[in-house]
Amino acid sequence: MGLFSKDLRTLDDLFVHQLRDIYYAEKQIVQTLPEMIEKATDSNLKRGFETHLGETKNHVNRLEQVFKMHGVEAMGIDFPAIDGVIEEADDIIANVDDKKVLDAALIAAALAVEHYEITRYGTLIAWAKQLGRPDCASVLQQNLEEEKATDAKLTSLAERNVNVKAA
Amino acid sequence: MGLFSKDLRTLDDLFVHQLRDIYYAEKQIVQTLPEMIEKATDSNLKRGFETHLGETKNHVNRLEQVFKMHGVEAMGIDFPAIDGVIEEADDIIANVDDKKVLDAALIAAALAVEHYEITRYGTLIAWAKQLGRPDCASVLQQNLEEEKATDAKLTSLAERNVNVKAA
Repeated sequence: MGLFSKDLRTLDDLFVHQLRDIYYAEKQIVQTLPEMIEKATDSNLKRGFETHLGETKNHVNRLEQVFKMHGVEAMGIDFPAIDGVIEEADDIIANVDDKKVLDAALIAAALAVEHYEITRYGTLIAWAKQLGRPDCASVLQQNLEEEKATDAKLTSLAERNVNVKAA
Repeated sequence: MGLFSKDLRTLDDLFVHQLRDIYYAEKQIVQTLPEMIEKATDSNLKRGFETHLGETKNHVNRLEQVFKMHGVEAMGIDFPAIDGVIEEADDIIANVDDKKVLDAALIAAALAVEHYEITRYGTLIAWAKQLGRPDCASVLQQNLEEEKATDAKLTSLAERNVNVKAA
């Protein structure tokens, strides 16, 4: 596949590699959310996506801060996992006509993205602490908290409202 | 992309589509876990992956049961999201030499897979209930509980043991 310019030798290498993974992911999400905002019909969902777009831009900034704190370059190499998750979201957007069904599909796609981010931040925070970088862990924790809050908000919106309309 | 042979018109169509997504994912994981078992060094991690391989085979069977209950075919079309997650796991396996660092990387990869499954099962269960199929929801819930338990077990193993050795 050739993702790597060199072998991953230490936990620090892995940390930087995974930091680049989530950095790439956050930037892809910034590009994808505007279409999801446009396609969403339910006003709460639309507003939720808009809020999260602002948060996601802020996550990119926080990650650049962590790269700087750690003294490494914020490289933008491609990672296939988030690409696959977003590709499925795009397919759904292209293949659902009914607006209420589309809202349910958009939430499902967004939840898959949130869970991807939650697992990556969870691992990064554990590794940062292990590497003696509680300062990096603390910045990453702020992103994680916002992803978890978005996950909870979308789940509640799906169950209270969007799935009911779609059924 | 051409994932779909027809448009997704109803919440029921979406439910079946996402059921095929997780079915494909579980079958890919059955194929991937043997290599992860072979590469793992920490004995608890190796044993954890072995246990989860047995559970995952059982998840495939339960999904086939849900397809049957719902009267639809358990088709095996490809889905890019889990392919991307597994591709990243394969890359890590190929690019880390140090056994203790590899164990940490294997856990991170496995956690990404678990979170992917947790979000998909969460959505499927919500949709099954909405569609008036608590019987399908109940079978899917059994898979979800096992994925959550595996996630918790791997997270604890990483924090207590594997990351410490890797650092």
